[in-house]
Amino acid sequence: MRQRGERQIIVLADGGFDLLEAKTAVGVIRYGIDRVVAVVDQTHAGKHASDVVGIGTDIPIVPTVGDALAIAPTSNTLLLGTAPRGGILPASWRAQIVQAMRAGLDVINGLHAFLNDDDELAPIAAECGVTIWDARRAPDSHRVADTRAHALPATVVLTVGSDCNVGKMSTALEIDAMLRRRGRTSVFVPTGQTGIMIAGWGVSIDEVISDFTAGASEDLVMEAAKTASTSSDIILVEGQGSLVHPGYSGVTLSLIHGSAPDALILCHQSSRTQIRRYTLPIPSLSDLVALHRAVTAPVKAAPVIAISLNTFGMSEEDAQAAVGRATAETGLPATDPVRYGPGVLADAIEAFSRARAAS
Amino acid sequence: MRQRGERQIIVLADGGFDLLEAKTAVGVIRYGIDRVVAVVDQTHAGKHASDVVGIGTDIPIVPTVGDALAIAPTSNTLLLGTAPRGGILPASWRAQIVQAMRAGLDVINGLHAFLNDDDELAPIAAECGVTIWDARRAPDSHRVADTRAHALPATVVLTVGSDCNVGKMSTALEIDAMLRRRGRTSVFVPTGQTGIMIAGWGVSIDEVISDFTAGASEDLVMEAAKTASTSSDIILVEGQGSLVHPGYSGVTLSLIHGSAPDALILCHQSSRTQIRRYTLPIPSLSDLVALHRAVTAPVKAAPVIAISLNTFGMSEEDAQAAVGRATAETGLPATDPVRYGPGVLADAIEAFSRARAAS
Repeated sequence: MRQRGERQIIVLADGGFDLLEAKTAVGVIRYGIDRVVAVVDQTHAGKHASDVVGIGTDIPIVPTVGDALAIAPTSNTLLLGTAPRGGILPASWRAQIVQAMRAGLDVINGLHAFLNDDDELAPIAAECGVTIWDARRAPDSHRVADTRAHALPATVVLTVGSDCNVGKMSTALEIDAMLRRRGRTSVFVPTGQTGIMIAGWGVSIDEVISDFTAGASEDLVMEAAKTASTSSDIILVEGQGSLVHPGYSGVTLSLIHGSAPDALILCHQSSRTQIRRYTLPIPSLSDLVALHRAVTAPVKAAPVIAISLNTFGMSEEDAQAAVGRATAETGLPATDPVRYGPGVLADAIEAFSRARAAS
Repeated sequence: MRQRGERQIIVLADGGFDLLEAKTAVGVIRYGIDRVVAVVDQTHAGKHASDVVGIGTDIPIVPTVGDALAIAPTSNTLLLGTAPRGGILPASWRAQIVQAMRAGLDVINGLHAFLNDDDELAPIAAECGVTIWDARRAPDSHRVADTRAHALPATVVLTVGSDCNVGKMSTALEIDAMLRRRGRTSVFVPTGQTGIMIAGWGVSIDEVISDFTAGASEDLVMEAAKTASTSSDIILVEGQGSLVHPGYSGVTLSLIHGSAPDALILCHQSSRTQIRRYTLPIPSLSDLVALHRAVTAPVKAAPVIAISLNTFGMSEEDAQAAVGRATAETGLPATDPVRYGPGVLADAIEAFSRARAAS
């Protein structure tokens, strides 16, 4: 497989290239170090990525992989860029994946369905001499968490959320980048397929057997602690799901107790009132702060120290009002790290880290 | 494999036949419908099961499988009766399992390590014409929970706990049996290997990939709802782990949100002050009641309606005092269902069910 930095990526997101479905595609476009040369999606063909998801003014959207290969002949990697519910490979994608492999492209796959196990696709990859990377493939780890990450020198910060797909990964990536610009040693810990594709390591913890999910989370933090090893260093763990999500709350709690954060950043999409795809209301920010206090306290206390809002699609006036309301309601610093930069959140972490080192 | 009711079981619990480690063995002896004819454990050889775990006055403990076969020549099933941390097969057990299979015994295995996948043991089982049942083998389910169990006619009750191995399964089994004696339609829902071995169905939910653990829990309740289908029926779900357990809390929360109980029974071992194998203190009963209220409220509110205490090893006076303290602290009915019978708990559920049907 081509290494990070050497890839030229065609994103396959057919039928789902939008902010709701194409989290992986958008994450790789925004934060990846490899160039995305085209997006394949019939429903938006003819536009540019930026027309649909707000970034990628130079990335054309084309109807088929054949069209993408024609306009970007130097492309060398096909990335499956949506994460459909349940993670099953859409049947219509098979022919397009085969076409890409026959053109010599490696495949990066973030679905639950592993292409290396696929009776049709795996032999074709071998025949074409290309590599399939199943980014969600979890290590065969069978270790129950033992609290080994409870007392590290570095400050461990986990992003948590009011729902899926509200900005937990982006928040962690934005803060990590700013802390490093400020000269801090900071390590981003990827816990899902998009973060893994961006950072080049990590474990898709929702793919781990549930008895061992906290253990796998712990292992990731211990790995980061090899680099972020002093009391002035920061480990930023990518959060998953939400404590109030009916399907994924267990993944979230495993990550909270396994990664054993010192502090939390609570992420929320300001315009969202219900859990996505469910009819459940999202609790207030102050109720969410209290809930996280309640579940962390018995194992390792970890206060929410700041609020990260996703104000995508809102007017500037509404976004500012949302930030103001968040602070008024919770008494915590708040911002939208994509719209306004992550300075407020990075400041909160630095202050917390200093206080922790002094105590 | 011999069917439930036709088995004569040798329990292999070598080195671990005690209440701390042999949860599966004790559960099958206490609640199973098949006869346990011997227990294999070198460390307690010469005693009877009742000398070590309080039940099984007619079950001899012998040092080897060979000894068990000699004294119980009609035995037809070997049950691996401990659940070691991480679930790995102790190396010393292999020769004993082979000896049992060569003598024609089926094997029931509750470990994470699947014997049907074992390169040594699986071929020998085939050669001997015996069956291995890996009770923890989870179905290949990839369904995210969708709240389909949120509004069933029957009252769904989940046992939750202050820690692992405090009596969540026993409490559910004791109540289920009493409700059926009272003429109720009640279904016990097994969620772990011992419950599965006792009831003959179920899913070991801690073995499910964490994204789908809540979905698997939901499926189990939906299966039970085929039998317990009216508003006067009860579904009793076996709890797993604890919200305050650093390793297993995610399994617990997946089960809580997936099984979508109407009410909870909180289980606790009165003499225990720390999470077993960890140095974390167990919160007070009232704090645990509040924590369960906090995590259920945003998805589906489910009050704790009674406390089930495990007072094993305590004097009668201390046990009565513990029950009194639990009620004084929480304001809820409390009892030890094994020591005093589950009447108090069954009463609480029947009262809750009546109030729910009337509302």
